[in-house]
Amino acid sequence: MRLPFGLDQLEDRAREHLSRGAQGYFSDAAYSDAAGLFTTARENEAAWQHWYLRPRVLVDVSEIRTETSILGTPTRMPILAAPCAYNAFAHPDAELAVARATAGVGAIHVVSTAASKPPEEIARAAAADRWFQLYSDIDAGKTDERLRMAEDVGFKAVVLTVDAPVGAPRYHGYPEQGFGPVATANVLDPGLEWGEVERIAKQTDLPLVLKGILHPADAILAVAHGVAGVVVSNHGGRQLDGAIPTAFALPPIVGAVDGQIEVYVDGGVRSARDVMRALALGARAVLIGRPYLWALAIAGEEGVRELFGRLCDELRNAMMLTGQVDVASIDRDIVVPRPGSSYASPER
Amino acid sequence: MRLPFGLDQLEDRAREHLSRGAQGYFSDAAYSDAAGLFTTARENEAAWQHWYLRPRVLVDVSEIRTETSILGTPTRMPILAAPCAYNAFAHPDAELAVARATAGVGAIHVVSTAASKPPEEIARAAAADRWFQLYSDIDAGKTDERLRMAEDVGFKAVVLTVDAPVGAPRYHGYPEQGFGPVATANVLDPGLEWGEVERIAKQTDLPLVLKGILHPADAILAVAHGVAGVVVSNHGGRQLDGAIPTAFALPPIVGAVDGQIEVYVDGGVRSARDVMRALALGARAVLIGRPYLWALAIAGEEGVRELFGRLCDELRNAMMLTGQVDVASIDRDIVVPRPGSSYASPER
Amino acid sequence: MRLPFGLDQLEDRAREHLSRGAQGYFSDAAYSDAAGLFTTARENEAAWQHWYLRPRVLVDVSEIRTETSILGTPTRMPILAAPCAYNAFAHPDAELAVARATAGVGAIHVVSTAASKPPEEIARAAAADRWFQLYSDIDAGKTDERLRMAEDVGFKAVVLTVDAPVGAPRYHGYPEQGFGPVATANVLDPGLEWGEVERIAKQTDLPLVLKGILHPADAILAVAHGVAGVVVSNHGGRQLDGAIPTAFALPPIVGAVDGQIEVYVDGGVRSARDVMRALALGARAVLIGRPYLWALAIAGEEGVRELFGRLCDELRNAMMLTGQVDVASIDRDIVVPRPGSSYASPER
Amino acid sequence: MRLPFGLDQLEDRAREHLSRGAQGYFSDAAYSDAAGLFTTARENEAAWQHWYLRPRVLVDVSEIRTETSILGTPTRMPILAAPCAYNAFAHPDAELAVARATAGVGAIHVVSTAASKPPEEIARAAAADRWFQLYSDIDAGKTDERLRMAEDVGFKAVVLTVDAPVGAPRYHGYPEQGFGPVATANVLDPGLEWGEVERIAKQTDLPLVLKGILHPADAILAVAHGVAGVVVSNHGGRQLDGAIPTAFALPPIVGAVDGQIEVYVDGGVRSARDVMRALALGARAVLIGRPYLWALAIAGEEGVRELFGRLCDELRNAMMLTGQVDVASIDRDIVVPRPGSSYASPER
Repeated sequence: MRLPFGLDQLEDRAREHLSRGAQGYFSDAAYSDAAGLFTTARENEAAWQHWYLRPRVLVDVSEIRTETSILGTPTRMPILAAPCAYNAFAHPDAELAVARATAGVGAIHVVSTAASKPPEEIARAAAADRWFQLYSDIDAGKTDERLRMAEDVGFKAVVLTVDAPVGAPRYHGYPEQGFGPVATANVLDPGLEWGEVERIAKQTDLPLVLKGILHPADAILAVAHGVAGVVVSNHGGRQLDGAIPTAFALPPIVGAVDGQIEVYVDGGVRSARDVMRALALGARAVLIGRPYLWALAIAGEEGVRELFGRLCDELRNAMMLTGQVDVASIDRDIVVPRPGSSYASPER
Repeated sequence: MRLPFGLDQLEDRAREHLSRGAQGYFSDAAYSDAAGLFTTARENEAAWQHWYLRPRVLVDVSEIRTETSILGTPTRMPILAAPCAYNAFAHPDAELAVARATAGVGAIHVVSTAASKPPEEIARAAAADRWFQLYSDIDAGKTDERLRMAEDVGFKAVVLTVDAPVGAPRYHGYPEQGFGPVATANVLDPGLEWGEVERIAKQTDLPLVLKGILHPADAILAVAHGVAGVVVSNHGGRQLDGAIPTAFALPPIVGAVDGQIEVYVDGGVRSARDVMRALALGARAVLIGRPYLWALAIAGEEGVRELFGRLCDELRNAMMLTGQVDVASIDRDIVVPRPGSSYASPER
Repeated sequence: MRLPFGLDQLEDRAREHLSRGAQGYFSDAAYSDAAGLFTTARENEAAWQHWYLRPRVLVDVSEIRTETSILGTPTRMPILAAPCAYNAFAHPDAELAVARATAGVGAIHVVSTAASKPPEEIARAAAADRWFQLYSDIDAGKTDERLRMAEDVGFKAVVLTVDAPVGAPRYHGYPEQGFGPVATANVLDPGLEWGEVERIAKQTDLPLVLKGILHPADAILAVAHGVAGVVVSNHGGRQLDGAIPTAFALPPIVGAVDGQIEVYVDGGVRSARDVMRALALGARAVLIGRPYLWALAIAGEEGVRELFGRLCDELRNAMMLTGQVDVASIDRDIVVPRPGSSYASPER
Repeated sequence: MRLPFGLDQLEDRAREHLSRGAQGYFSDAAYSDAAGLFTTARENEAAWQHWYLRPRVLVDVSEIRTETSILGTPTRMPILAAPCAYNAFAHPDAELAVARATAGVGAIHVVSTAASKPPEEIARAAAADRWFQLYSDIDAGKTDERLRMAEDVGFKAVVLTVDAPVGAPRYHGYPEQGFGPVATANVLDPGLEWGEVERIAKQTDLPLVLKGILHPADAILAVAHGVAGVVVSNHGGRQLDGAIPTAFALPPIVGAVDGQIEVYVDGGVRSARDVMRALALGARAVLIGRPYLWALAIAGEEGVRELFGRLCDELRNAMMLTGQVDVASIDRDIVVPRPGSSYASPER
């Protein structure tokens, strides 16, 4: 075991392996600051605790299925590696390590447009089904080039990020340490709208997933525009500070979509019990981001493999303890809201 | 008086008498960690405080009955010693001390399958009515042997633990101190289901109680399968982290059962006022666990006797102060939820 | 000015003037402890903050009436000195100082059965309308003697304490400092019930008030038994720990009583804004206890006079700022509950 | 950049530039104290966090309009400089710097009756549309003089403060540092009522805005009396401690007014996301107070200009991130309440 016993200690342990700059970059959230204000990044984590697990018992749990399929892609667990930029800040093997680790355990890797390694090289690192995260470019030609590349390289789905028409101001670290607000990426397209979603969908045979949906009305529009799935996400709290935590945004979206397309969720998922909560609330799968970067920083490919392995083991354990045998059909009523609001609100 | 004035200081005081290993073992909860995250073990305690006591006054309370019967077993108080494994970690007299102490004060002792002392020796320690906690074994023959033993030794009821088809990962202490995740016990039976409950019920004339019910649907199934009672329990937070605190799980189960069988509760009960809350919410009795282990560690048999004695005295006091004269018929409306709670309203 | 600028600093300042024993006695609450558990005494204070004040404006507030009558006794402010035992622990002048101070500012003094000074001496200290707090004695003869005395001395009302059929265990301080659980007073009558209330009412022409009502059903019984008023009180958290804070118990009682008798409240009232909240929620007046003991400890009679004077001035100010001109008819809708329940919950 | 990266650090940074007296004066709130009690000033800030932002996506946000008109006055942003007294405590250029800075960025400056500089001089500092905050005087003649002045100087609207019929006791600092309760200003008029509002309205052709409305009933009266707008305000927590935070008072007032007049809000607005929340809840604009005083203390005119510039930039960013293109028509349903109320409750 290369990671700490408690996965909640991952972030602290990772700090020993990260430069201040990398720490700042990965932990950063929109408008985050030294004073430790209430940010969406921290609320994402806390909000899952709003949902209590209420197990069923006396179910034969000797056979547990964590295997499922996502958009038709079979996977050994409903946990995906979220698209994270610049993995090289965490470890020199960067996305190559993540690719090998996820391939090894059978988890889907969603490769970022802003990866530290070229997609072709990532794809060659290990044979596996992968998805490609796409930033639409102001120049539609570039967007199409990326789509062509995704198809050529053999990605199985395209995940279009829709919550970044512009960057958000982020203040990681202090000027005396050489950091400042991150410049808004040039590539972002403030004109991205449903018409472009339709155009992109026509440009490719790959299933199209929209990442960054928080409002049920947008989920309904996604269904109407024929996309294959949506990721309920607030970009890990890195875009709009004050955005609703995904644990609260998820249920109304699941209700609005009503099974017509798949719904995934990311943001603050830090344990297999959080995965259970998300699935019980109607998600088909979850994406985890920062935790695998921390594992990558601590122990490279082996760390990432251990992380996904342990999450899958703990998910199996949590399924046994809640009387759920098939990850694709978790009972809805094994989660109940905390009375009032006394969940562990993040400290100021 | 051997115990601290305030019973809330028991745990701190007990630390002086316990090895780090024993502390770790007893205080441990699923996935617990050094960072002090909000776990079910701690939420169990806090959740009772959700319920305010709203006393009745001007009732003649010169005669108070804390005596009641539980499954027909008369007891001097509605407070049982919960089944706890390995009492020898707390004190060399282990379950023998607990047996004598509970016999002395007239509380029912529920003896664990994993006791440090053999059941026969515990039974010989002092004449009293006791119950036996049963882990169903993968090997049904072994389960039946335990049942025979329970009958032969003269236990008055069998308490089948149903929330442990598998162990949960626990991380008590740190590797450098020689601890690691506890291996899942071999004896646990992941195939335990209602059929086995029926089989066990047929194997014995002792009343059968199911321990580890949190979902009202399972309580209804328990009634349908003819069990005599259920213990609303999340295993002291030692199994599924994130499980609903029992103070919140209890009311809907009482409602679902509707008086057809007896309902007990454990988890975070730390004072006679918590006992009052549980009884007012519909429990027939409560089980306490860690507090008697702490008392055992501090002062052996005498400590356990003092603990139960004081809880009973304080229960009598709390009954006088709430105008309740008979512990078997506490008014429901002397507890009210803390404002803001959506819990007052029917189940979501 | 002898008291600190901020009245919230009274308790801290008073500590410099009180022996540890007196501090323990006055600050004490049922089951209170060093660990700072969630107690009713602290919740009483916090609960008033649940209610936001929502002022009316553009009302002519150049004439403000804080004067009112309570059970027909005219008073300069709707703030009474609650019956507190053993004022000599705070200051050698004890109840004589309180009597003079309250007489000086025109506030009603409710004298405790357990005063440090004889009632006759208190009455002689200054001419004023006073009430007498009565503990019913197991020996009805003694109860009647106290009633006779109350009439002879000229008290204007009798306040029968009904929430103390027995004492509660209190643990103030530690054995090494020479303190232990306070013995239950012998005088308390566990047989006190409505029949005795009726008997007492017949024994005297003084109006009878019941102190210690928390349940609306008891308030309705109080009306039926012809008492003149009730004090919504949990004995300052000194009796049943876990009892509902009076700021939450008050509104349903006001609703149940529906104007048929007067309703007062005590418990955690620490400022003129708390007084406003209580009045808006339907109380005719409030009683304050510990604050005047602190003021007494700090500056004797002068401190108590300053305290009531400042509370009355600040009440006048708060009335002006909420557009309320007559203390006897404060609008109900100038208080609104805090969304959900995030009022200042006491820290563990 | 002269201000700290995180605007939440403004107050801390400003302390280095302010005398203790000025710090006390600006940060002060009614009844505030060293012990850090729950005050309305702090609750104002926290209450905005009760409202989560729930963005819309896939809207073309390449053209964003932060420009709007307020009472017909065109403005580059829906953020006004609130009327704050004695700006000279922050910087020798005082209101002249604020006037130039707001003129430079196109924000409306509401000049206080109690400004450190004469209104005429402020008006001459830079050409811009400004409003005048009016305290009604006991002497109606003086009130009228101020109105004449406001017209002569060319102010575009009159903002009558209605929540100060009297001052509130404030305790900033300690006597040993030479501070004491602030004397109630002589100028305040406790007799101010709706009749005087009507009289003032007749005395001037300038639109009349009432500042200090918290109760929907008063907002309805404001409509009936023909005023042009209301500012939902609790005077920054400097008047009635315990008053409802404006983030909670705003929605019912918007509902009551139902579009008949404009509604503005101030109190605890500390970021562009707070501005978004206010606009989504129905405010036409917000006023900020302490933040510009802090910016003024740190860097004079340049600081204030930077502050408004950054707030406007961040508002534009937040609009892009929530799919809102026109500041005058923000969707209502992009804000949702936090489940229960566990918003960042100020620590005791």
